[in-house]
Amino acid sequence: MTKKVLVLPGDGIGPEIVGQATRVLDALIENHGLDVTYESALVGGSSYDAHETPLTDEVLAQAKDADAILLGAVGGPKWEQYDISVRPEKALLKLRSELELFGNLRPAILYKQLADASSLKPELVSDLDVLIVRELTGGIYFGQPRGIRTLENGERQGYNTYVYSESEVERIAHVAFKAAMLRDKRVCSVDKANVLEATELWREVMDRVSKEYPEVELTHMYVDNAAMQLVRAPKQFDVMVTGNMFGDILSDCAAMLTGSIGMLPSASLDANGKGMYEPIHGSAPDIAGQNKANPLATILSVSMLLRHSFGEAELADKIDQAVSTVLDQGLRTADIHTDGDKLVSTTEMGDAVLAALA
Amino acid sequence: MTKKVLVLPGDGIGPEIVGQATRVLDALIENHGLDVTYESALVGGSSYDAHETPLTDEVLAQAKDADAILLGAVGGPKWEQYDISVRPEKALLKLRSELELFGNLRPAILYKQLADASSLKPELVSDLDVLIVRELTGGIYFGQPRGIRTLENGERQGYNTYVYSESEVERIAHVAFKAAMLRDKRVCSVDKANVLEATELWREVMDRVSKEYPEVELTHMYVDNAAMQLVRAPKQFDVMVTGNMFGDILSDCAAMLTGSIGMLPSASLDANGKGMYEPIHGSAPDIAGQNKANPLATILSVSMLLRHSFGEAELADKIDQAVSTVLDQGLRTADIHTDGDKLVSTTEMGDAVLAALA
Ligand SMILES: [Mg+2]
Ligand SMILES: [Mg+2]
Repeated sequence: MTKKVLVLPGDGIGPEIVGQATRVLDALIENHGLDVTYESALVGGSSYDAHETPLTDEVLAQAKDADAILLGAVGGPKWEQYDISVRPEKALLKLRSELELFGNLRPAILYKQLADASSLKPELVSDLDVLIVRELTGGIYFGQPRGIRTLENGERQGYNTYVYSESEVERIAHVAFKAAMLRDKRVCSVDKANVLEATELWREVMDRVSKEYPEVELTHMYVDNAAMQLVRAPKQFDVMVTGNMFGDILSDCAAMLTGSIGMLPSASLDANGKGMYEPIHGSAPDIAGQNKANPLATILSVSMLLRHSFGEAELADKIDQAVSTVLDQGLRTADIHTDGDKLVSTTEMGDAVLAALA
Repeated sequence: MTKKVLVLPGDGIGPEIVGQATRVLDALIENHGLDVTYESALVGGSSYDAHETPLTDEVLAQAKDADAILLGAVGGPKWEQYDISVRPEKALLKLRSELELFGNLRPAILYKQLADASSLKPELVSDLDVLIVRELTGGIYFGQPRGIRTLENGERQGYNTYVYSESEVERIAHVAFKAAMLRDKRVCSVDKANVLEATELWREVMDRVSKEYPEVELTHMYVDNAAMQLVRAPKQFDVMVTGNMFGDILSDCAAMLTGSIGMLPSASLDANGKGMYEPIHGSAPDIAGQNKANPLATILSVSMLLRHSFGEAELADKIDQAVSTVLDQGLRTADIHTDGDKLVSTTEMGDAVLAALA
């Protein structure tokens, strides 16, 4: 059956980078038998400008109806003057919660052609391919009770609650093990089970769910050690799975190991594998409309979409390979450009990826 | 007035490395006018073997009576069979809580002579000198309520409480600002104030206390960004201050950036600047008694002790300089040895530091 993708270009460089990603989709539909249709809609600041809300009910309904969502980026100084309830970022939070997108996939991949961009020694990160699976809708960022209260002695106290129920851990465990089945079949679960009871239960549930995936090797690591190991020898990992807060810290740390944020896609999945896919970089309003932005993270988001929501591993591999080919050709947008490379525009990079796909 | 140091060598390599550190103390007392006396006592497994407890009341009283404590390391497989209540590590927890050592100083320093040991490119970490100040006795690791409960729907839920009161934040803020006054006078406070109320109050108190230190520049950074910045450009920081859990993660991450855990000292301070000083590495039972261990982290712990508890910045600089001199001489214990260096034993390294001090 024909799958439906909702395309949400968003703000800033969003329309430019998504424009190149949909060219890739078009090519796969026309020449490689991909059975997909897509339609585009406004989100974020551009939606606010047209409808005074960053996410209309119509677009939310379209998102619910779609089989997957491809997002560019939202936000910019233009909308920072408005009330926080109608800021562009609110659209993403609403999409995540309404669609129950609790499974955040954050790859830290480094094409060997870009290994010099890392702050780590090239041999430690060249061809890095770690997938961090972060629980996105629970844990301490959402836990109740929370707030700032006044104690009997008159001083104030801030408090938050780190909380996970078994079912919350189970569903993110399945996301991690399923992702591992598409890769090297190794999951490292990160917790602080020696100190925090909330993560003691996390570890127990991970062990239990792992029995349903006998081919996957499960190990456990404390979060402080995980931060050390990511810095020391990141290539030791295949899939890492952890809660919302630890995942926030470790996925950003791992992304920075690659040295090129403009290359990294991400996914947020629901329990059925439906997902929203987007680059991890922002809307870069300073270079918007200048045909300078790097479209590769968005193009790689299409690859993730095909792999994780549509089961099209071969077409996903094709995209990944095309990106590698254009890097081999020495083509670089400004964000990843160094002496000796050929500086190209957003559309020139898109042209090159399409040529490499053909 | 003569200051008193309690020396607790502990287990494994503890007695060997502390033996070299006390030789340094002796030299400073005899030749450089340091007005200090010290006595030694058992702690950890060695205390258990003699008294069936890892920390006797007598030693605890000695610790309370001392002006500073120099610790080696505790633990080893020999004592893992015993009940958790009498394990060697319990001695450290009890010393910290009884002496209210809430202010953990974790330097991430990398002598330029060892820059190649880092996983980062040498120019990014050579001469690194970051001090991470971690709150050690509060936050989520100690917060109540905590546990695993059964919900009405029958599933279990794990929960912990991230909690800080104003007075707890105030006292760690003073530790950080005082430490910064001895350095480059810059403090970066790390929180997640955009999401966690407990750290919103943290940020507010940091701002308030900073007014008492007008010479010190205070900045704020979210914890996920801090993890990125440590990996990207660690030399941008002078002092970082953060809560117990974030400090656990970031201090270990920063330590690993140096590539040589065997070189790093630490301190745990009370509100009056009294402290316990120890290397961050463990008791290394596999090489205990073989005269192989690296004594430099313990010798640098003496430097920290003089600087932070006794106000002897000049003598502390002298020790730091002596360590740099022996590294210049190409002397390396096994843990930091590479081709072309001269491999030395624990005592030979101690000899060289003493010669450099003279
Ligand atoms: Mg983040
Ligand atoms: Mg730790």
